[in-house]
Amino acid sequence: MLATLIELQRLKRLDRTGWTLRGLPNGTESGAAHSFGVSVTAMLLADKFISHGISLDVEKVLRIALLHDWAEVRVGDMPRTATLYFGSEARKQAETAAFADLVADIDRTQYLSLYDDYEQRHSLEAKLVKAADVLDLLVEVLALERAGARGLDEFWEVAEKPDFNLDGTAEQIVQELLQAILKARSQLFNNG
Amino acid sequence: MLATLIELQRLKRLDRTGWTLRGLPNGTESGAAHSFGVSVTAMLLADKFISHGISLDVEKVLRIALLHDWAEVRVGDMPRTATLYFGSEARKQAETAAFADLVADIDRTQYLSLYDDYEQRHSLEAKLVKAADVLDLLVEVLALERAGARGLDEFWEVAEKPDFNLDGTAEQIVQELLQAILKARSQLFNNG
Amino acid sequence: MLATLIELQRLKRLDRTGWTLRGLPNGTESGAAHSFGVSVTAMLLADKFISHGISLDVEKVLRIALLHDWAEVRVGDMPRTATLYFGSEARKQAETAAFADLVADIDRTQYLSLYDDYEQRHSLEAKLVKAADVLDLLVEVLALERAGARGLDEFWEVAEKPDFNLDGTAEQIVQELLQAILKARSQLFNNG
Amino acid sequence: MLATLIELQRLKRLDRTGWTLRGLPNGTESGAAHSFGVSVTAMLLADKFISHGISLDVEKVLRIALLHDWAEVRVGDMPRTATLYFGSEARKQAETAAFADLVADIDRTQYLSLYDDYEQRHSLEAKLVKAADVLDLLVEVLALERAGARGLDEFWEVAEKPDFNLDGTAEQIVQELLQAILKARSQLFNNG
Amino acid sequence: MLATLIELQRLKRLDRTGWTLRGLPNGTESGAAHSFGVSVTAMLLADKFISHGISLDVEKVLRIALLHDWAEVRVGDMPRTATLYFGSEARKQAETAAFADLVADIDRTQYLSLYDDYEQRHSLEAKLVKAADVLDLLVEVLALERAGARGLDEFWEVAEKPDFNLDGTAEQIVQELLQAILKARSQLFNNG
Amino acid sequence: MLATLIELQRLKRLDRTGWTLRGLPNGTESGAAHSFGVSVTAMLLADKFISHGISLDVEKVLRIALLHDWAEVRVGDMPRTATLYFGSEARKQAETAAFADLVADIDRTQYLSLYDDYEQRHSLEAKLVKAADVLDLLVEVLALERAGARGLDEFWEVAEKPDFNLDGTAEQIVQELLQAILKARSQLFNNG
Repeated sequence: MLATLIELQRLKRLDRTGWTLRGLPNGTESGAAHSFGVSVTAMLLADKFISHGISLDVEKVLRIALLHDWAEVRVGDMPRTATLYFGSEARKQAETAAFADLVADIDRTQYLSLYDDYEQRHSLEAKLVKAADVLDLLVEVLALERAGARGLDEFWEVAEKPDFNLDGTAEQIVQELLQAILKARSQLFNNG
Repeated sequence: MLATLIELQRLKRLDRTGWTLRGLPNGTESGAAHSFGVSVTAMLLADKFISHGISLDVEKVLRIALLHDWAEVRVGDMPRTATLYFGSEARKQAETAAFADLVADIDRTQYLSLYDDYEQRHSLEAKLVKAADVLDLLVEVLALERAGARGLDEFWEVAEKPDFNLDGTAEQIVQELLQAILKARSQLFNNG
Repeated sequence: MLATLIELQRLKRLDRTGWTLRGLPNGTESGAAHSFGVSVTAMLLADKFISHGISLDVEKVLRIALLHDWAEVRVGDMPRTATLYFGSEARKQAETAAFADLVADIDRTQYLSLYDDYEQRHSLEAKLVKAADVLDLLVEVLALERAGARGLDEFWEVAEKPDFNLDGTAEQIVQELLQAILKARSQLFNNG
Repeated sequence: MLATLIELQRLKRLDRTGWTLRGLPNGTESGAAHSFGVSVTAMLLADKFISHGISLDVEKVLRIALLHDWAEVRVGDMPRTATLYFGSEARKQAETAAFADLVADIDRTQYLSLYDDYEQRHSLEAKLVKAADVLDLLVEVLALERAGARGLDEFWEVAEKPDFNLDGTAEQIVQELLQAILKARSQLFNNG
Repeated sequence: MLATLIELQRLKRLDRTGWTLRGLPNGTESGAAHSFGVSVTAMLLADKFISHGISLDVEKVLRIALLHDWAEVRVGDMPRTATLYFGSEARKQAETAAFADLVADIDRTQYLSLYDDYEQRHSLEAKLVKAADVLDLLVEVLALERAGARGLDEFWEVAEKPDFNLDGTAEQIVQELLQAILKARSQLFNNG
Repeated sequence: MLATLIELQRLKRLDRTGWTLRGLPNGTESGAAHSFGVSVTAMLLADKFISHGISLDVEKVLRIALLHDWAEVRVGDMPRTATLYFGSEARKQAETAAFADLVADIDRTQYLSLYDDYEQRHSLEAKLVKAADVLDLLVEVLALERAGARGLDEFWEVAEKPDFNLDGTAEQIVQELLQAILKARSQLFNNG
């Protein structure tokens, strides 16, 4: 178990390449900091789902959110363009294999099944975490733009294809949060 | 909910002062990266507890781990010496009040109760997270020392008063992980 | 004396949390760099006061400017919001106690009396340093904004309540410098 | 041509993941800084080859050295472990495809042929650059270790399988430089 | 030769002072990263010259581009204002002497002659590298401005005195690239 | 006066090249942080001198300490080796000219006279500041070495030629502090 913790520790230093490739300083955001953001966003979204009568396994949500980027300590934080050259299938296979090796000494079956669920966006919990992944990215972009960063427009394109593949109320809750983010951004550029 | 997410985002940049006060470079570890480490450690510890027949609310464990440092976005990451001058009671009150304001617009009752549980180390889940907090700190110190950092001996003193206030098997599981960390450290300095 | 110097050295690494909490990179400004800025600003202000016939103890001005943030090496650079939760009285007491311990082995009586004077804004010299503290902050914000930083508007609110609590000519000198800073800022945003 | 230059500019910020994954600070070495090191090392090695009567196309050497890591701006600086999961063949294909797209608007045929030569280690020039790539890595590790970095032992394992696949004198020249580096390292740890 | 490589390695860490003096974060661009940018720009310019029938020694171009800033490891990256106080003649002499000492143990005659050629802007190759030096600077400024940096207007003044001292077609090729950069910049500020 | 403050602000970002040239991370210490350290050291030394009956103008001490590195904002923090190539006379002249221009709009006569005193090491106050400059450097090296930095031995050579050119008791006070630093360093390497 210690070996796994030591290896996952590496996410604390690994820069998110999306920022450095666009000219922002090294150290802008680590993979661990992003995973924290996704986990917190997923937790608050889960609360909201539940308060609207949607039943949900919150433990599962948080487990998936915490583990969804573990493979990066072995394959790195590949930029989006990398997927064009490796193919998304090959990328998924490589990341799954890396993940499997990482959890070989802990509760392998459970973690592989959670990871597979996330990759397939099978369960409601997996879809919620994917939504949280996108929302945390946009909140980070908003925070960077508030601090003066520019040249990040392409991240907002994600926000234009707004299907999170959730049902009724759930989709609506996520869309409302997305709209709130978009509104905060448009206020940023209208006022300042 | 967006306002809360934006404010918690700030943990991604807030340096852990323990490192900078000891001469390590700015950006060594953010509060968010530490919270990620604690959450992952708590999750793996919870798995181990369960596999030894200890019953546990994992959702609660993960919620506490994710939120235990939120107050820092309002009161900062105060160095240990700060507690000497404010008094640990005043520090707790201030952090609790800051936490309460942070969660005013989300599920206030639930989060305050979780936070209070953690501060009191009431439940088994709260004690587990406290153990994870200490263990993640030591794994980070070990990682820094492996990379060449020195002058961090005082962090190891924590490891000498090894009472995590857990019962039987649970205490034993945590102690074993602690011993594994101490062994890895002594190997580091004997071999290199 | 060496122990004091080693401990004060820590200000060279301690990030000013005002910047990191607003999304600027770690390492934007250290406590030591700020103290240097305040000391230089105070020295030039003192020159100006003297040239207008105001009598002043420049040695005292410079001593206060150099020591006014020493307590941070023990209590950290607390964000403004922290004061809301601790109360400004408790904060002052804690910082004074930390300062007292720091100077225990050097010229204790002299330094405590200077620190107390600064905290009470008793003497003209103390008021001048407080003005320099504000002015250095604003010059730093201006420099950051010139380099592209945004989201720092709340720092300019300080500049709207312009009472430095000085007498006649002294107040006027400080106000003129403040106006020059505000003018430089408005030119920045009108031209670019 | 400008689009190509702007995209290659990104190598100036892209951290070499080898360092960050081992706990060294962000910003330790960029891809561009490494490429500069390889190019300079290759130039000095070429001089030495020539002075020993080995005929060589120095222009080709320098072109290969400058371009050998361009693909990273699209696929990232993948850690070594990534190759285990993607397979070295898939990695080569992806990097070659990324490189081909990068040079589509400049002198495509020439650059693809140089890149292919490097990937195959066909020509003497390509082999020389590969040797320079290894030597610059080791000189960097030595510099980091001199400055206090630790935990980099695995990089020295490269130095134990010393076949650069060069002929006679050429191999000997490279081996001598390698030995000089190893000697400098052993002095570092014996003296300090 | 190893001693030279170790010393040149230092360019990988040496910040370009132009950025830090204007308030950009430390680590924005190293001397080595800039030299890489100049070398790549020079290589692509050389290709273009050749494709327009201009004959050129590309090996010489690349050697000059790689070595043109080596003296900085001994005299530092002096800001432009430094030249005002030392005089450009004294600066040239000092840098040439530093360069001469640096290459004392490698192929001294060849390198001194290349360096001298560059300093005098004698050959077509030297002029081409000087043009690449300016163009890489402007592409870097453009990249920084795209990422949100401001306050860099004075760098664009270079672009207003557009004489690169080249003949006919060569001058035209460089001017066209310069115009493309200026156009990209004006689009940046018109659109966003 | 504002123009002067804005320009001196630049010292807050300017890296001390001594560290980066030896492989330590960018941002290790700014010129402003060093000037703060020298000023504080000078103040405590002045206290000690006075308590031993040496009469001293403390205002003058602090003014000199604060201004002694201002010229760096125009000529940069030149590495020691730079002096070999420019000659120490030319360096002094350039720095003096830069300093003179910097203070042209403030109290020119006073500042030039203080600067000249420091450069000549005329007065007791100037000699005291020079001693503080050396001592702050060594305390910084000690702090860096405690945090794991290595390869800084050459800085300790300064400490072997221990003549600060002071009289009797004054020289003795400085020597005692120097010995305390050397002792702390030898304990560092004997214990750990």
